[in-house]
Amino acid sequence: MHAAIVMGSDSDLPTMKKAFDILDEFGVSYDVALASAHRTPKKLEEFVAAEEAKGVTCYIAGAGMAAALPGVVASLTMKPVIGVPLSGAKLDGMDALLSIVQMPSGMPVATVAIDGAKNGALLAVQIGAASDAALAEKYKAYREDMARQIYEKDEKLQKELGR
Amino acid sequence: MHAAIVMGSDSDLPTMKKAFDILDEFGVSYDVALASAHRTPKKLEEFVAAEEAKGVTCYIAGAGMAAALPGVVASLTMKPVIGVPLSGAKLDGMDALLSIVQMPSGMPVATVAIDGAKNGALLAVQIGAASDAALAEKYKAYREDMARQIYEKDEKLQKELGR
Amino acid sequence: MHAAIVMGSDSDLPTMKKAFDILDEFGVSYDVALASAHRTPKKLEEFVAAEEAKGVTCYIAGAGMAAALPGVVASLTMKPVIGVPLSGAKLDGMDALLSIVQMPSGMPVATVAIDGAKNGALLAVQIGAASDAALAEKYKAYREDMARQIYEKDEKLQKELGR
Amino acid sequence: MHAAIVMGSDSDLPTMKKAFDILDEFGVSYDVALASAHRTPKKLEEFVAAEEAKGVTCYIAGAGMAAALPGVVASLTMKPVIGVPLSGAKLDGMDALLSIVQMPSGMPVATVAIDGAKNGALLAVQIGAASDAALAEKYKAYREDMARQIYEKDEKLQKELGR
Amino acid sequence: MHAAIVMGSDSDLPTMKKAFDILDEFGVSYDVALASAHRTPKKLEEFVAAEEAKGVTCYIAGAGMAAALPGVVASLTMKPVIGVPLSGAKLDGMDALLSIVQMPSGMPVATVAIDGAKNGALLAVQIGAASDAALAEKYKAYREDMARQIYEKDEKLQKELGR
Amino acid sequence: MHAAIVMGSDSDLPTMKKAFDILDEFGVSYDVALASAHRTPKKLEEFVAAEEAKGVTCYIAGAGMAAALPGVVASLTMKPVIGVPLSGAKLDGMDALLSIVQMPSGMPVATVAIDGAKNGALLAVQIGAASDAALAEKYKAYREDMARQIYEKDEKLQKELGR
Amino acid sequence: MHAAIVMGSDSDLPTMKKAFDILDEFGVSYDVALASAHRTPKKLEEFVAAEEAKGVTCYIAGAGMAAALPGVVASLTMKPVIGVPLSGAKLDGMDALLSIVQMPSGMPVATVAIDGAKNGALLAVQIGAASDAALAEKYKAYREDMARQIYEKDEKLQKELGR
Amino acid sequence: MHAAIVMGSDSDLPTMKKAFDILDEFGVSYDVALASAHRTPKKLEEFVAAEEAKGVTCYIAGAGMAAALPGVVASLTMKPVIGVPLSGAKLDGMDALLSIVQMPSGMPVATVAIDGAKNGALLAVQIGAASDAALAEKYKAYREDMARQIYEKDEKLQKELGR
Repeated sequence: MHAAIVMGSDSDLPTMKKAFDILDEFGVSYDVALASAHRTPKKLEEFVAAEEAKGVTCYIAGAGMAAALPGVVASLTMKPVIGVPLSGAKLDGMDALLSIVQMPSGMPVATVAIDGAKNGALLAVQIGAASDAALAEKYKAYREDMARQIYEKDEKLQKELGR
Repeated sequence: MHAAIVMGSDSDLPTMKKAFDILDEFGVSYDVALASAHRTPKKLEEFVAAEEAKGVTCYIAGAGMAAALPGVVASLTMKPVIGVPLSGAKLDGMDALLSIVQMPSGMPVATVAIDGAKNGALLAVQIGAASDAALAEKYKAYREDMARQIYEKDEKLQKELGR
Repeated sequence: MHAAIVMGSDSDLPTMKKAFDILDEFGVSYDVALASAHRTPKKLEEFVAAEEAKGVTCYIAGAGMAAALPGVVASLTMKPVIGVPLSGAKLDGMDALLSIVQMPSGMPVATVAIDGAKNGALLAVQIGAASDAALAEKYKAYREDMARQIYEKDEKLQKELGR
Repeated sequence: MHAAIVMGSDSDLPTMKKAFDILDEFGVSYDVALASAHRTPKKLEEFVAAEEAKGVTCYIAGAGMAAALPGVVASLTMKPVIGVPLSGAKLDGMDALLSIVQMPSGMPVATVAIDGAKNGALLAVQIGAASDAALAEKYKAYREDMARQIYEKDEKLQKELGR
Repeated sequence: MHAAIVMGSDSDLPTMKKAFDILDEFGVSYDVALASAHRTPKKLEEFVAAEEAKGVTCYIAGAGMAAALPGVVASLTMKPVIGVPLSGAKLDGMDALLSIVQMPSGMPVATVAIDGAKNGALLAVQIGAASDAALAEKYKAYREDMARQIYEKDEKLQKELGR
Repeated sequence: MHAAIVMGSDSDLPTMKKAFDILDEFGVSYDVALASAHRTPKKLEEFVAAEEAKGVTCYIAGAGMAAALPGVVASLTMKPVIGVPLSGAKLDGMDALLSIVQMPSGMPVATVAIDGAKNGALLAVQIGAASDAALAEKYKAYREDMARQIYEKDEKLQKELGR
Repeated sequence: MHAAIVMGSDSDLPTMKKAFDILDEFGVSYDVALASAHRTPKKLEEFVAAEEAKGVTCYIAGAGMAAALPGVVASLTMKPVIGVPLSGAKLDGMDALLSIVQMPSGMPVATVAIDGAKNGALLAVQIGAASDAALAEKYKAYREDMARQIYEKDEKLQKELGR
Repeated sequence: MHAAIVMGSDSDLPTMKKAFDILDEFGVSYDVALASAHRTPKKLEEFVAAEEAKGVTCYIAGAGMAAALPGVVASLTMKPVIGVPLSGAKLDGMDALLSIVQMPSGMPVATVAIDGAKNGALLAVQIGAASDAALAEKYKAYREDMARQIYEKDEKLQKELGR
């Protein structure tokens, strides 16, 4: 699989880099672009066109405030678009959440939690795993590892509590 | 002046027609388009291009839910864009309000009240009146008429209350 | 592709049936289950196990209020889970939206708009289309048809306005 | 009485430890588990099964964001489940509150205030006191002590104000 | 067990009667009072005193708007108080929810969903079942019946869908 | 005039002291009490009874979260009660605002802004000024002084801007 | 005492008339004006000036949406201003509530519940009663009557329940 | 063109100065006033009258909390008024947003994002550019510069990512 990550501003990078880390960890190739739906619509169109030509599997678009980016990406592609609402401005990301998730009938954006760039990348992995058995195995191992960490932390907690 | 009204769906017409009525009342020429930021981005681009060629004064864009339309119009023009958040879906138009008003730095959309298509058109008139003395006069008369109506209604109320 | 639709109550059917219609229209095979995360967790586990055995592509889970269903499905599968927040109770579906979209790190649910069952199904189609060229073609045609409808409605509107 | 406290992540410990303190103060025996509804559903089931075998009086489940944990515990037991919505992520715990309190008909979760782990434990004590006269006495003394503290602080305040 | 149901206004009756029905169904004895925290505080005190004398197990208090009733009941008793936020006024019951659930440290109210009188009564049953094996059995049967209804409705749905 | 200020916790003092300052500035006599609607209802009743005996003009009650205090004071007196919603917990004081302002029909609480203890005291002064011409004069002077400060700050700003 | 009631639109009359009824019931003289802060600011100024000349005790101002009216009245008088947030538009009156209650430091508006015109009038009565012993007696009787109604309704309820 | 900027308090200056910067950058002449709708209504009237005499193009009014200022300015002029909701108090500026954007029918205020003083000034520039070709050119260059910055930042990002 190949993923495309897009955000409108470099101020979104600290949060969106968590998506880079997940894709790196899973060995998924991806491109990244700064491209704003409002300020550089042509750049966004060109990025999407280039990704389409590469056979991109899905998009991960992070945006804050009146977060139009994920929906505009959706308008330019037939592929699934994952939207990550970003906080950072006032309103704790509630504006971005509603701007992304409340897409009109016919044009879905797969929305994840506020600042949930990591989950956005994991959702991309799940989508890619549909046609990539090795990736599916890796994802299963990741989930088992998450579970194992809870077992270990619980063990540590029981010791602290002297049980 | 010449205004351009755009909305993404014909279900927005009953509310947006209040803007038509105001522009008709003020004798302002306007074009209307159904063009969706998400479903028909090319149609939207073409409409904006055509309006620019006509020397449009400003745009009035009404949209509900993840209301990307006004912001996308703003990305396509240097002219003022007036955004009308529409209710109709769940959440009473709060989603549309935040999706329209919380535009990123550098790209304003002049937002009016939820379902405030009438006020959107009046704001367009105010903008056009800057370089059209006759229109400015008409707007002043409109405002005086609004005030007069309150005086008349108050008079009627005083009678009802027997004062 | 093969999809699995699950909801916790038959009162969710009128909204969720819009997902059936889309999958029928696209010729996508799907199973449906009433299975509640809270009232029939075993039934839910069994349904997911059966769907896994069938090689399900993804799940569409609709739920209202403290909408745990999509997240619980996600805990039982490695496949993508699409969550549809349902209104119907008080709070206009805002409770369901937050209960579904705010999944913890590591466990995404692909959330669509409140009552957006149709978009949930279209997202499933987009996911399935990744490895099904015929489905991808159908989806593209669907999108073109959506666009064409707007062109037609606009034409009708222009006539009504006498332009 | 015997209580069971469960939370999905060790990041919830600082808040949830206030519940430990109350139960310690009241001499109530309790077990604690890290067990996530989404990441380790089997561990959660096993913990609940073990607690049921011990004749647990009630559960206290703390969770943030799409806080499914209290409801999932409720689905696994006939005993009262007390839910503590945790803040920590964006949205100040409002997401967790709605995810916990808005349980569907037939499956209550006794919800306390955001980050109200202390009150969660006191509610458990009230429930346990129904069949434990000594505990009931202790709770009465606790309440009297709370009141006395206000009297003392008021006395101090009056002195500061010179009255 | 014996339960006490209190509400401040007869306009709360249609919703609160769902609690009567559950307690009747479980054969739980209960008293009901109209008594307002604000309008008839003495009546409320007397009702609570009388219920205490009867050895009441817990209270169910329903209230809307600035719903002080459950908290005021809590201030008058050592027994668990279950709060039911009622909608009916503007704001969909969100005002009542926050007024009930956000109790200060030291004074819990076990809050259930907006208009969740039925769940309030079921929570009372769960609390009473702690020291009443027959009631515990009945509650278990009730839960099994709820589950069975979902199985039956699912069966019916499968038939409708021709599967 | 004579005012009575009441709050439920000494953690409310830093905000409520702004009310002390205003009353001191206006030379209005006042009593202060820590008395909780939930933890020390008897103390609250006794304070109100004592104030009534003194011929109190009005009450100022500050409270956070499920802020029952102002409403409970209102239930104990025929005098105007001014409610000050306090932030401090999560939710920015929105919970306290709704808990105070949404009083049921027949029992008003005069609500001021979140953390608006100063305005609460000024409202008390306005109420007291109705039958105290000297106080009315002082309040008028206070308002003129507020206005003068803006004139002075504006003058300073014009200088800074070089105009 | 003498009260002044003001609202910006005759569409506010059905709700605001509840204030007329209370003042009539208490035999309080009052004037009413339709005068908009935005549309007829001069009319509003003249109304306030006339009321001041009459020695008005306090104002009751009802407004919806961006409800500036109560605050603007406050800017024109030294007398207490009671604000009634009106619903009617979208957002259930939450916009009006925040627009009225969140007054800046130094300029209080005594805010009552959404659509709480009746409570607004009762608060006016409480303020007027400070210097009118007969009115104070009437208000006490009103409160006793409210309480008595609850006793009567409770009696009726007990009969219906056969107790 | 000539713009008028008004705010009610010098605490609004740090945010509103971003509007000064934009107007300076575009070479637009402007006046600034501290003038409060509530505390110095006469000063506000005089400022607006003076600006009208100068032929002001439009107003930019910033306000927080119960932000009446933009609407009151609108009531005093026929020119477009741009409202900037300011955060700073509790509620993250949501109170100011609703107080500004939800203007009644007939009296629009062109609302921009919370703390969006920069966008407020850019909207003023767009309005002024309608009859000032040089300004229109400058604005176009500004927009191109914004776009160029994204291209440059993207280039930098690609290097950092080693692509």
